[in-house]
Amino acid sequence: MNEKKPILEHINGPRDIKNLTVSELKTLAGEIRHLIYTTVSRNGGHLSSNLGVVELAIALHRVFNSPEDKIVWDVGHQCYAHKILTGRRETFGSIRLEDGISGFPKRSESLHDPFGTGHASTSVSAALGFLVGERLSGGKGLAIAVIGDGALTGGIAYEALSHAGQLGLPLIVILNDNRMSISPNVGGLSKYLSRLSMKAKYQNFRRTVDRLVKKIPMFGGTLFTGITRLKRAVKAAFYIDNFFVDLGFEYVGPVNGHDIEQLEDVLRDVQRLNLPVVVHVLTKKGKGYEPAEQDPSAFHAVVPSGKPPEMADVAGKSVGMSFTREFGDAMIELGGREPRLVAVTAAMEHGTGLSAFHGAFPDRFFDAGIAEEHAVTFAAALAARGLRPVAAIYSTFLQRALDSIIHDVALQKLPVVFAVDRAGFVAGDGETHQGLFDISLLRSVPNMTLLAPACGKELRMMLEWALLQDKPCAIRYPKASVRTTDRPPGKYGESVPDHSPPPIEHGRGVFVEFFPVPAAPVEKKVFVAFTGSLYSSMEAAARLLNESKINADFYNLRFLKPVDEGHLASLMSGYRAAVFVEEGVKDGGFGEYAAALASGKKVKVLTLNAGDGCFAQGSRDELLARHGLNGEGIAASIRALL
Amino acid sequence: MNEKKPILEHINGPRDIKNLTVSELKTLAGEIRHLIYTTVSRNGGHLSSNLGVVELAIALHRVFNSPEDKIVWDVGHQCYAHKILTGRRETFGSIRLEDGISGFPKRSESLHDPFGTGHASTSVSAALGFLVGERLSGGKGLAIAVIGDGALTGGIAYEALSHAGQLGLPLIVILNDNRMSISPNVGGLSKYLSRLSMKAKYQNFRRTVDRLVKKIPMFGGTLFTGITRLKRAVKAAFYIDNFFVDLGFEYVGPVNGHDIEQLEDVLRDVQRLNLPVVVHVLTKKGKGYEPAEQDPSAFHAVVPSGKPPEMADVAGKSVGMSFTREFGDAMIELGGREPRLVAVTAAMEHGTGLSAFHGAFPDRFFDAGIAEEHAVTFAAALAARGLRPVAAIYSTFLQRALDSIIHDVALQKLPVVFAVDRAGFVAGDGETHQGLFDISLLRSVPNMTLLAPACGKELRMMLEWALLQDKPCAIRYPKASVRTTDRPPGKYGESVPDHSPPPIEHGRGVFVEFFPVPAAPVEKKVFVAFTGSLYSSMEAAARLLNESKINADFYNLRFLKPVDEGHLASLMSGYRAAVFVEEGVKDGGFGEYAAALASGKKVKVLTLNAGDGCFAQGSRDELLARHGLNGEGIAASIRALL
Repeated sequence: MNEKKPILEHINGPRDIKNLTVSELKTLAGEIRHLIYTTVSRNGGHLSSNLGVVELAIALHRVFNSPEDKIVWDVGHQCYAHKILTGRRETFGSIRLEDGISGFPKRSESLHDPFGTGHASTSVSAALGFLVGERLSGGKGLAIAVIGDGALTGGIAYEALSHAGQLGLPLIVILNDNRMSISPNVGGLSKYLSRLSMKAKYQNFRRTVDRLVKKIPMFGGTLFTGITRLKRAVKAAFYIDNFFVDLGFEYVGPVNGHDIEQLEDVLRDVQRLNLPVVVHVLTKKGKGYEPAEQDPSAFHAVVPSGKPPEMADVAGKSVGMSFTREFGDAMIELGGREPRLVAVTAAMEHGTGLSAFHGAFPDRFFDAGIAEEHAVTFAAALAARGLRPVAAIYSTFLQRALDSIIHDVALQKLPVVFAVDRAGFVAGDGETHQGLFDISLLRSVPNMTLLAPACGKELRMMLEWALLQDKPCAIRYPKASVRTTDRPPGKYGESVPDHSPPPIEHGRGVFVEFFPVPAAPVEKKVFVAFTGSLYSSMEAAARLLNESKINADFYNLRFLKPVDEGHLASLMSGYRAAVFVEEGVKDGGFGEYAAALASGKKVKVLTLNAGDGCFAQGSRDELLARHGLNGEGIAASIRALL
Repeated sequence: MNEKKPILEHINGPRDIKNLTVSELKTLAGEIRHLIYTTVSRNGGHLSSNLGVVELAIALHRVFNSPEDKIVWDVGHQCYAHKILTGRRETFGSIRLEDGISGFPKRSESLHDPFGTGHASTSVSAALGFLVGERLSGGKGLAIAVIGDGALTGGIAYEALSHAGQLGLPLIVILNDNRMSISPNVGGLSKYLSRLSMKAKYQNFRRTVDRLVKKIPMFGGTLFTGITRLKRAVKAAFYIDNFFVDLGFEYVGPVNGHDIEQLEDVLRDVQRLNLPVVVHVLTKKGKGYEPAEQDPSAFHAVVPSGKPPEMADVAGKSVGMSFTREFGDAMIELGGREPRLVAVTAAMEHGTGLSAFHGAFPDRFFDAGIAEEHAVTFAAALAARGLRPVAAIYSTFLQRALDSIIHDVALQKLPVVFAVDRAGFVAGDGETHQGLFDISLLRSVPNMTLLAPACGKELRMMLEWALLQDKPCAIRYPKASVRTTDRPPGKYGESVPDHSPPPIEHGRGVFVEFFPVPAAPVEKKVFVAFTGSLYSSMEAAARLLNESKINADFYNLRFLKPVDEGHLASLMSGYRAAVFVEEGVKDGGFGEYAAALASGKKVKVLTLNAGDGCFAQGSRDELLARHGLNGEGIAASIRALL
């Protein structure tokens, strides 16, 4: 790759690329790739997908006029070249860092980011909204959604395509077909796209077919009563031949997504078309970086290393022995014992730690694609049929399936187990990916049991316990290590070799003895209850409080719903103050529940949580600290209370 | 219609129809129609859709063996004939009544209802889950999803079709195409289905095409280099010709859905096919009842009258001047003043009272179809583009768009106004349609303002206020009258001609004087705060408490989020007891919030709400009474507290 950046250094906005030659554009693409590659090596982030759309981003900004024309990048994890081209070249080095630019499009960051993305499949809805708004406001601006084949499996994208096809406005949908979403994507549509693009000269074929149609009439008389009818019928057969055409779109493609000239030609045609159109672009994930080209899935998300990008061990290596991996291991073990156990995921096989389960029990593993609603309703029916489904979905994506959880699982009291990964603060990805709503949302779901393990063994116990219940259970755990170094002895703690958490009692938590109780108890005694994901923070807080001679008892809640209220109330009544610490938003959280339970009682209640608002990016430690949920923050709040 | 029921009287399960003659089946269909017609006249319910699928239900139960074969009726509002045929003939008269059978499929009601439905578009996911479960369990049972063309616009149905096509299991999807969902449905798919079924002899056409293909090779040489290549290419063109085929399904149809013999023939073929298949059935909504055939949309939901079914004035006539109609009227008025105002709905144009707005401002009205997620994200983009969208969606359906609300609207702080209709208890439809989760769910959404009007004028004020904010606002109101008869004078009450609610103060509610304050205040004084939908209940409670000489001050909360906490806390501090009454679930509700606010304070707090659990059907008054939220219940709880 080119070390010098004579071209990129002069690109401060889309206008600066309009007059470059083809040769210069190719050089520019290489320079952008180099910048992405080196930055991702340092900061972590998405590599393969960004390397795959460099030429596409250049061609889009050559042909269209952002910000008058709105470009919406679906999911947004592939927006790096777009950011570099739209005035963020110099700040690009801060991507994903605290106070740096976001790894996803952000309205607050640039006029060239008209709509924030993060979750998949929203871009067509958003671009359609912009286009409608533009037309109602008398503007002439265009709207372009860039959506991958993986994101296209999400139902909302289909809803939007269907609506857009009906409105007939000149929406431009760029289908970025790398035939590979995060996991090689699944579903009928994926097969269809493969079929479509495998016919390398599909456009030529179509033109040939057109000629064929024109020639048929002279023989058609023997088959049909009239030429007109024949033409109509054959035309219908040929033109109702495409998923997108069915929905009311023109279809152009496939186009080589790494050939800037071809891309530009097609996009300029499309710009003039003035009809809803899907441009089918073929790209190669990881383009230009050999290891990523070979195994794009492994380079989907990269952890910061300062070295050339390594494969991100999304199942947990990057954070030590993780909750995710404990879950994956437990699933293998339980799967061997319980033949009714089945696993369901929504395009997150690796991320949820289920790859090994998939390998071990291929018939009992289901990847529904980026389709959380379907995944949950499908799991509900599996449960209704007598199986024991475990649906492993990230907290932030589970939000999408809330009605499926209420309507299909909970109201019918079906025993689906939800493995809610990435519950709590999530590093790097920023506010769209924080897992901070699940406590509030799942608490409001009838018949739901919500559990929060504090360590890997507890996660296993809870999973085992949940599989024995005849009702839905959700187990929430963070993207974090289950081990901390330098952990003092206690009932918990993986550092204790024979560590075994106490058995699960319905609705109750357990005290955690971070330190032996002092012989002569100090005066101030406080009850500190917490959600499991905060175990490490609590441990640090315990040490600090101990140093301050504050005698605090720590209580791992385990059950966030339902709660043995009498038990919890009687526990609290023995203390002057009760503190509830949770890794989730304030409104509707556990703290609110506990404080309400304490109302009318003497005990002073303090709730600590992630607050209410936006949770911009940072590392998990930074985010915990920012919200006062690290050891220092918790200890300081408790000191202030007493 | 036939008054005698010689055949139906002997039908106690699907087996009893297996040996009937064609002529007897036709008679049976007539008898079932009569029973549906007379029962719906008395109990209310869905008429048109149920009359449209009588023959389909008969044919399904003739060919398949329920409950071994699982039949899942999408939405489920068309399950009446199915219920009558599966052992619920005698209890059918109790449908939709308190303690009667449900108007929707219910697992608890019959083995023939394998999966409860209510919200649209879940049937394909559910049937697929059953089929997978059956196969994994070694069973041979089949699974059939019956889904309407309207429900097919929902993204989850597409997600499930895509997944099913990939799995390749012999899932049977019956596409019940009446080309009319609740409102004439919208979207590209609808247009496509029309195109497909308008070609009346589509199957004949396909056969003709096959013959054509076979004949082409002798002339094809001039166009292509080889016969093999031609065959492959032409075959591809002809077979990639259908939305369902694209997704991996076989496609059969269209079939006349009122011809039992033809239906049976096709279904028996399909039963043997052992492949994923879509059977496209054309039915006529309201079949057999002339007024409903003419205007099926008007007869979609019928109110109980004891007379022949009347058009249900879903915009509110049946419940007097309704919140829904107030909203519709206000939208017209505001639409005239504010050109940026646009309305978005998800297949509920009539139900949300937006028909007149649609008529008055056709360019500014958008029906996204049964596609709540898309509707909300689309609205978010309209707001981002500078318009002022109002998204009118029922509380129960808004659950489906929760992630769109969080991810697309709230995190970006976009000023979308949500008109949350049917918030609170909803008559007849049962637990799947209760609007009891929105308070808990929307409270957890960052940047959200949640308002609850107590009367029509307040709804207008709030709508106007919300449209001036630069952040998302939701206004929740029940399916209820805004007027009660015999209302005593007070600051509220439509019976006062110059009634005008006090202006809106951010985060604050207002006291409501149902009765003049007594000159000599009685000793016990209680603060009673409530959500607007309970105004009538509070009025009744006020009268009862007054009779008991309990001096209570009533406070209409207005703001459920955010709350001027200092103000509310200081209000409470003046009372011995504070009662919070809300029409919503307990967990995460306003009461929990308020009780938490009062923790550590002297005031005794009582929260009254809909609890946590299942909210089976009944009238709104019955449901309020059952949960202690009518005047008597509230007064009794307050008396017990003091």
